[in-house]
Amino acid sequence: MADNDFDRIKKQVRQFVVERDWDQFHSPKNLSMALIVEAAEMVEHFQWLTEEESCKLSPEKLAEVELELADIQIYLISLAHKLQLDLVAAVDKKLVRNAQKYPADEVRGSSKKYNEYKNRS
Amino acid sequence: MADNDFDRIKKQVRQFVVERDWDQFHSPKNLSMALIVEAAEMVEHFQWLTEEESCKLSPEKLAEVELELADIQIYLISLAHKLQLDLVAAVDKKLVRNAQKYPADEVRGSSKKYNEYKNRS
Amino acid sequence: MADNDFDRIKKQVRQFVVERDWDQFHSPKNLSMALIVEAAEMVEHFQWLTEEESCKLSPEKLAEVELELADIQIYLISLAHKLQLDLVAAVDKKLVRNAQKYPADEVRGSSKKYNEYKNRS
Amino acid sequence: MADNDFDRIKKQVRQFVVERDWDQFHSPKNLSMALIVEAAEMVEHFQWLTEEESCKLSPEKLAEVELELADIQIYLISLAHKLQLDLVAAVDKKLVRNAQKYPADEVRGSSKKYNEYKNRS
Repeated sequence: MADNDFDRIKKQVRQFVVERDWDQFHSPKNLSMALIVEAAEMVEHFQWLTEEESCKLSPEKLAEVELELADIQIYLISLAHKLQLDLVAAVDKKLVRNAQKYPADEVRGSSKKYNEYKNRS
Repeated sequence: MADNDFDRIKKQVRQFVVERDWDQFHSPKNLSMALIVEAAEMVEHFQWLTEEESCKLSPEKLAEVELELADIQIYLISLAHKLQLDLVAAVDKKLVRNAQKYPADEVRGSSKKYNEYKNRS
Repeated sequence: MADNDFDRIKKQVRQFVVERDWDQFHSPKNLSMALIVEAAEMVEHFQWLTEEESCKLSPEKLAEVELELADIQIYLISLAHKLQLDLVAAVDKKLVRNAQKYPADEVRGSSKKYNEYKNRS
Repeated sequence: MADNDFDRIKKQVRQFVVERDWDQFHSPKNLSMALIVEAAEMVEHFQWLTEEESCKLSPEKLAEVELELADIQIYLISLAHKLQLDLVAAVDKKLVRNAQKYPADEVRGSSKKYNEYKNRS
């Protein structure tokens, strides 16, 4: 799967919505709700697992988790579309900010320091 | 911003984490928590707005929302990386499923039908 | 249903967990995940509804929503128990803070002001 | 703090909203969003902690978590009020269902079984 397919899936997600005339339900408010519902379905897979177990999912479980990942990505693409924002440009901006906020030399490997920070990636 | 930059930001997100030695905190369980926290920060922007208002954000608000979008995308990339899943391939699979589940001719523009469905995109 | 039954349901929730030996899974971390998953199931009921529609649920829908409310309350009770916190005392403290933060005379009915506040009740 | 104070805090939460004329923003849709945002603030406290660490919070952290618990309880009370539902009655119904769904003798202490269940308390 070539990564330059991101442009293609954006178009496909858009086409899917247009073909079903679902734009009328896709206000940014509603899409933010749909997105967090999908994020919660991901959390649900991990809620009773230890951290170690969450690293070693069975193939069946992994296949389910893959579809949840997809749902989140799909709503994220739809939300960016409605807000006329570019996801790649947004990440570029955020990575610049994060690099200033968390200089590698200061925060490296320190869980104490890490835990004090509110926004990380 | 060319869309084939998606591959580039995936590498940058990865590099950011490695340089800070933060992999130790990035179990799938923890990343799913971080992702939903960011999704909630997006929801927070929209919680008291009407649907109409959510479509017409001020430039200042839009700039904040852009960074929340980025945070979600960044954690989604990190989560896919840890699970060794490809986001584009996952979306491809999900779109095929969704097309079978919601045939355009049957569900078009019907909010009643739409509301009964559990998973949409 | 008398409201002083709150003490009774706290005991019943506790008993339910003990009888099933589920305490071992109920770390505050895991319970916070379970709680947000239930909160998302509530959000899911409302995600494609207009605000008006969300005020006029059918009896069937309302019965489902009632059980989601219960799930959130149950996990909230369990989480408070594990952290040895008293929910009523916590609300008392928070209401005092909120009254200082949002003086009624200053914030009354103003959606503009309201939208600028981060924490409200 | 006597537990029959639950009735009192319900009234106080209601009075707080009325005094500020905030009912106009409190559609069930919006309140479900506010509730999940508060639930996420709770999750944020625990996202990088191990399960063990989440059981041993510092007094400072515990004081913060207490206020998040309160926020969730406050929105849950407001949501129940708007839907004209009784939280205690809802929990009573749900506990009866859960007892049928997860008979103590069948599910006791089994993490495998536990993980397969979707709705637990």
